[in-house]
Amino acid sequence: SMEKGCPYGTHRVLEPKGVLPQPALKLDNNMDEIYDNEILIDVQTLNIDSASFTQIKEQAKGDIEEIKRIMKNIVDERGKHQNPVTGSGGMLIGTVEKIGPALERKIDLKVGDKIATLVSLSLTPLRIDEFIEVRPEVDQVDIKGKAILFESGIYAVLPDDLPENLALSVLDVAGAPAQTAKLVKPGDTVVVLGGTGKSGMLCLHEAKKRAGVTGKVICIGSRDETIARTKKADLADHYIKADATDAVGLMNKIKELTDGEMADIVINTVNIPNTEMSSILATKDKGIVYFFSMATSFTKAALGAEGVGKDITMIIGNGYTEGHAEIALEIMRENEKLRDIFEKLYA
Amino acid sequence: SMEKGCPYGTHRVLEPKGVLPQPALKLDNNMDEIYDNEILIDVQTLNIDSASFTQIKEQAKGDIEEIKRIMKNIVDERGKHQNPVTGSGGMLIGTVEKIGPALERKIDLKVGDKIATLVSLSLTPLRIDEFIEVRPEVDQVDIKGKAILFESGIYAVLPDDLPENLALSVLDVAGAPAQTAKLVKPGDTVVVLGGTGKSGMLCLHEAKKRAGVTGKVICIGSRDETIARTKKADLADHYIKADATDAVGLMNKIKELTDGEMADIVINTVNIPNTEMSSILATKDKGIVYFFSMATSFTKAALGAEGVGKDITMIIGNGYTEGHAEIALEIMRENEKLRDIFEKLYA
Ligand SMILES: NC(=O)c1ccc[n+]([C@@H]2O[C@H](COP(=O)([O-])OP(=O)(O)OC[C@H]3O[C@@H](n4cnc5c(N)ncnc54)[C@H](OP(=O)(O)O)[C@@H]3O)[C@@H](O)[C@H]2O)c1
Ligand SMILES: NC(=O)c1ccc[n+]([C@@H]2O[C@H](COP(=O)([O-])OP(=O)(O)OC[C@H]3O[C@@H](n4cnc5c(N)ncnc54)[C@H](OP(=O)(O)O)[C@@H]3O)[C@@H](O)[C@H]2O)c1
Repeated sequence: SMEKGCPYGTHRVLEPKGVLPQPALKLDNNMDEIYDNEILIDVQTLNIDSASFTQIKEQAKGDIEEIKRIMKNIVDERGKHQNPVTGSGGMLIGTVEKIGPALERKIDLKVGDKIATLVSLSLTPLRIDEFIEVRPEVDQVDIKGKAILFESGIYAVLPDDLPENLALSVLDVAGAPAQTAKLVKPGDTVVVLGGTGKSGMLCLHEAKKRAGVTGKVICIGSRDETIARTKKADLADHYIKADATDAVGLMNKIKELTDGEMADIVINTVNIPNTEMSSILATKDKGIVYFFSMATSFTKAALGAEGVGKDITMIIGNGYTEGHAEIALEIMRENEKLRDIFEKLYA
Repeated sequence: SMEKGCPYGTHRVLEPKGVLPQPALKLDNNMDEIYDNEILIDVQTLNIDSASFTQIKEQAKGDIEEIKRIMKNIVDERGKHQNPVTGSGGMLIGTVEKIGPALERKIDLKVGDKIATLVSLSLTPLRIDEFIEVRPEVDQVDIKGKAILFESGIYAVLPDDLPENLALSVLDVAGAPAQTAKLVKPGDTVVVLGGTGKSGMLCLHEAKKRAGVTGKVICIGSRDETIARTKKADLADHYIKADATDAVGLMNKIKELTDGEMADIVINTVNIPNTEMSSILATKDKGIVYFFSMATSFTKAALGAEGVGKDITMIIGNGYTEGHAEIALEIMRENEKLRDIFEKLYA
């Protein structure tokens, strides 16, 4: 009978022993036998993290055969596609080939389902047997190969009614709109800092849906062009063009728009540093700031709120929340105008 | 009549214009006139931030007159005691000398009250007229001088029944026990990672009080000596000696103690990096991690939770919450054994 695995996959860690698969240097990628709680995936496409693929392309000077060689070396050495320079991974698409018996009845997944893994390739055991096609312009590589999803690993079944690339681009930031859906209540005033961006537009859609007619949803972006695009899709009640690093300037604009009440919830989806204070000052006392931006500094947020005596709850944007993939993909069905924008930009 | 000030003190910023007082290079420390929403403080003692004072002592090679000269230069140049090397400030104690009329009826503070400011010296306008005594072993400097507290600035009236130094050491970490008091509900299982430390012990006291007889409070420390001390004061229901960076090892210990249920709330008060995963794995699904430790990495927390598919709320430890000073100081009256420990260690 099969060997029992750890839910977090520590049983696949070869080096150093005892750590989790992400910080590990080498994973066991032998897939002739799987553990009783693993899912074996027949891989179709690797979606390499943009920072990682940029580095690989540079190292290979754009040569496709060299890109393949570098990728093969990474997987041979580490048992996973974790770029040793950037540390990052990516996602993958594939078909479920086997499900360990200890897991079979716990999940609603069956052999033959086409899924996207929503945990990083930097912790996913991977074997590459053959390269089929490298598409450097979209950071995608089609291969023949196998991968393992651990019991704690998350995934999404790819929907039949959406193009695969559209689904992928939405799944990449699924946590943000799903958390927005859970946080926003009817009547809330919501500010999305970076509302003109990929995750920001999805958050605006959910915020408007949840805040409803009695609520007020405010989009902040920094460029006329992106604001016009967002306005055309009617994603917010108000639009402000502002520099997200100008805390006091932005506070005054939000004050004006809300008759001094400020926001119940500020969602930060910008991709630049030094926007913690803007988020904090835009929030009302006892309000919530949800930091999705990876450029957020923990200490700037903690000391910043204390410095101005703001009693607010500041949440670290967890990339995962239950149902995040379903919630995010559904937006593409609910909002045709937003879907058009996404198809043009990302699919 | 008096000039109107900004609640955040931007009216005192000389350089660069438009930024908040903390990132500012120079504040106006002329206190002949105050703005209508300011509090003028007659300063008694500066409590210099430990990192800052260590740097100053080194630069001065321990010479007291040289320490004074360096401190005077900082305040002359910046209008505030923000160490240009460490960027940090500290707190101060003093007596309320004037309260701006726009503020007078909004706050329950009167001229003559002795207060500690709970916002950093790095954003507080300060004038030093004379040095009275430098006490390098406790990072304290008695002066004659004046300081300004802005409308958004927070403070605590020093209690009559507690030694000043004891009050100061508690006020330094007041946010942690106050947030614990607000988060913990009867019956909760609470883990305090770093429960043997200064803020950790205060959190344990509040957690035990709020979780009650139906709850379970678990203290994690790394040394026999500190665990014995905490045990003697009876601050938790269970004590675990563990390395807070060993995520899987700690998870298994918590699993054993909670029959696999894990913690409703994990409070992280350690002072070392790489403890995000331990906090995440110790928490049950839909549970809360409260990160008070300044060594917390935003990205390690965000990607870590996603990597193991944990649907938990992760909160950035805001140093301020309403009533935090009162809540924290009250612990010294409620718990004699804990007060003894604090008097020995910090007062
Ligand atoms: N927590 C997680 O699990 C997770 C997962 C994926 C991504 N993320 C993070 O989420 C963030 C957003 O990702 P994304 O894909 O949505 O990025 P994006 O599409 O590039 O959007 C960035 C947004 O920031 C705005 N922005 C940039 N500079 C600005 C400024 N000075 N003032 C005001 N707005 C400014 C942009 O506005 P304009 O276009 O109008 O200039 C745009 O709305 C990134 O930091 C990323 O790291 C987090
Ligand atoms: N958010 C805010 O506003 C704010 C304000 C003040 C302070 N802080 C932060 O709060 C944190 C704690 O401050 P504090 O004054 O309470 O510090 P402290 O008294 O030095 O306590 C540190 C704690 O960490 C524990 N620890 C250290 N290494 C460990 C390890 N390898 N395994 C397990 N436990 C370990 C210590 O346990 P042992 O003693 O048993 O080894 C002790 O319990 C600091 O990071 C500080 O920056 C935050």
